[in-house]
Amino acid sequence: MARVYNFNAGPAVLPLEVLEEARDQFVEYKSSGMSLMESSHRGKEYDAVHSEALANYRKLFNCSDDYAICFIAGGASMQFAMIPLNLLGAGQTADYVNSGAWASKAAKEAQLIGKVNIAANTGKDIPTKVPAARDLKLTKGAAYVHITSNETISGAQWKTFPKTESPLVADMSSDILSRPFEIGQFALVYAGAQKNLGPSGIALVVMRKDLAERAPANLPTILKYKTFIEENSLYNTPPCFSIYIMMLVSRWLLKNGLENIHRRNREKAAKIYAAIDAGFYKGTAVPECRSDMNITFRLPSEALEEQFVKEASKQGLKGLKGHRSVGGIRASVYNALPPEGVDALVCFMRDFARQNG
Amino acid sequence: MARVYNFNAGPAVLPLEVLEEARDQFVEYKSSGMSLMESSHRGKEYDAVHSEALANYRKLFNCSDDYAICFIAGGASMQFAMIPLNLLGAGQTADYVNSGAWASKAAKEAQLIGKVNIAANTGKDIPTKVPAARDLKLTKGAAYVHITSNETISGAQWKTFPKTESPLVADMSSDILSRPFEIGQFALVYAGAQKNLGPSGIALVVMRKDLAERAPANLPTILKYKTFIEENSLYNTPPCFSIYIMMLVSRWLLKNGLENIHRRNREKAAKIYAAIDAGFYKGTAVPECRSDMNITFRLPSEALEEQFVKEASKQGLKGLKGHRSVGGIRASVYNALPPEGVDALVCFMRDFARQNG
Repeated sequence: MARVYNFNAGPAVLPLEVLEEARDQFVEYKSSGMSLMESSHRGKEYDAVHSEALANYRKLFNCSDDYAICFIAGGASMQFAMIPLNLLGAGQTADYVNSGAWASKAAKEAQLIGKVNIAANTGKDIPTKVPAARDLKLTKGAAYVHITSNETISGAQWKTFPKTESPLVADMSSDILSRPFEIGQFALVYAGAQKNLGPSGIALVVMRKDLAERAPANLPTILKYKTFIEENSLYNTPPCFSIYIMMLVSRWLLKNGLENIHRRNREKAAKIYAAIDAGFYKGTAVPECRSDMNITFRLPSEALEEQFVKEASKQGLKGLKGHRSVGGIRASVYNALPPEGVDALVCFMRDFARQNG
Repeated sequence: MARVYNFNAGPAVLPLEVLEEARDQFVEYKSSGMSLMESSHRGKEYDAVHSEALANYRKLFNCSDDYAICFIAGGASMQFAMIPLNLLGAGQTADYVNSGAWASKAAKEAQLIGKVNIAANTGKDIPTKVPAARDLKLTKGAAYVHITSNETISGAQWKTFPKTESPLVADMSSDILSRPFEIGQFALVYAGAQKNLGPSGIALVVMRKDLAERAPANLPTILKYKTFIEENSLYNTPPCFSIYIMMLVSRWLLKNGLENIHRRNREKAAKIYAAIDAGFYKGTAVPECRSDMNITFRLPSEALEEQFVKEASKQGLKGLKGHRSVGGIRASVYNALPPEGVDALVCFMRDFARQNG
């Protein structure tokens, strides 16, 4: 089969040129006589990859030396634990904004470790949405405020971020580097790599270095942000090959430019939302919170949804089934999903509506 | 450059046929129209990989249903934390056998979490060795006893394992599946994958399921073994591509047979030790503890050691430099290092001794 259009929510589509370069270098990396997977993490081949990855992401986030870039094994679920373990001191409260399934998971993990205030809750709202900044009930002197910039399952996204007195922490797993933003608003942002950055099993964390000092002394070394910051994410053997793919993706992002990527993402999303609003389909999120990354919608019946997924798949439009917890349709249109894929989907949606409307 | 002989300590040499298959499937996996790296971890392509990996490792360890096979993001360093976090109850003591750098790191992490008894200490002995089983000062009712089956840096290896009343836990990072053994002796064995199993950034854990019940309720979900056991290592998005490589390695191990692999490993090691014992070189470990995986030795001077590494490298014998903390020479001859590499090294050692002796 030729390369399909991959609307998977994650692991998700990667730039074809990244995959092709990694394949061409897979068995023998840059005339080193071995695969990068077999190279020492202290050797010159990997060192160049690691340094470039750190430098490229620093450039992409346009962040000062007050911030550290960390590559940490495990995905966002590991960060759900590391954040309160490192930042939530005894007796303190952390504010969590519950905007859906992922925010709720993050809050639950923090509750195992310390005191949590749910600053707002739109987690079960239908149509789906994120709270308005003015509706947040924040705690004075909170250890931090946690938001989820984009809810992968519900398809709701923060369009502007709340201004908070306490350090703002964001799970950006499903929309990181899909749009430019001011890193200075945040104390820490994190993302599982498997949507916009690379393969699954690794997270990118961008954080203010001073925050890492908060960790209790008896926290295991590998769970301390301080360890990753001080050792440049080389305290132990990192997931070298995953970081290599993330480095290639960072090159691709720099080459394309974040402004261009963002414009393209908005155009892609707008086309699909226009197809939804033309009738037959019904968008899941309130219009002002519609995600540019995960576009969720329903059909008149579940039977039609099933048929939609099946017929789309036959036409090479893959991964359109909504999350098993909510049903419906979800088109994940991450950075690497080509505009041609969106055009093909929109065309299919029009035909399907005509035939079944 | 043609493929070199790779004596790296880890990340380390992988079977060439594994690399070639992964490369051939890299951009488009099995006519799915996408890379496995882009496939959903709940989809049928990855599901087949995951299930086969679990089944193959179960077969290789020949373990009953009382044991679970887990794939956990992060390497052995993450296990240094997870083991005491899960198994070392308040008020209990864990016995750690300090046989070198890695055992010592494991013990230090446990000390952050609970009470640790160092049951024996050969960590700084020169020549290097592991303790004799009869010399262990074990704690009655210890939560568990931790050993390091092979010290990658010092080149000392347990040849038979101690019988302990308390559950025996082993870090097998650098010799896992290099020889057959009875899993029933152990409550838990673990290994960072980047030596004998696959890429860096993931660990294999084989453990008695009942032990997972010990974890305190407030331990973060992602740090509980119970989570991995109950969810078949699919609680969150696992490092799918790493598990795929581990699955291919498990096929290679099954095809070759563990007995054959072991015989080949012993032959490879014996040839290098014979070259050492022929004079000029000096083995670092006491003869009865000599590792079949990491063969450590010294030359008459550090200048000669430097020259040895440089000249070997020119002849395509890579990664022979000893660990930066101890110096000297280290030839890591993991499962996938072909016997021809050992022959080439032995030949080089003979020539080098003749020219410089």
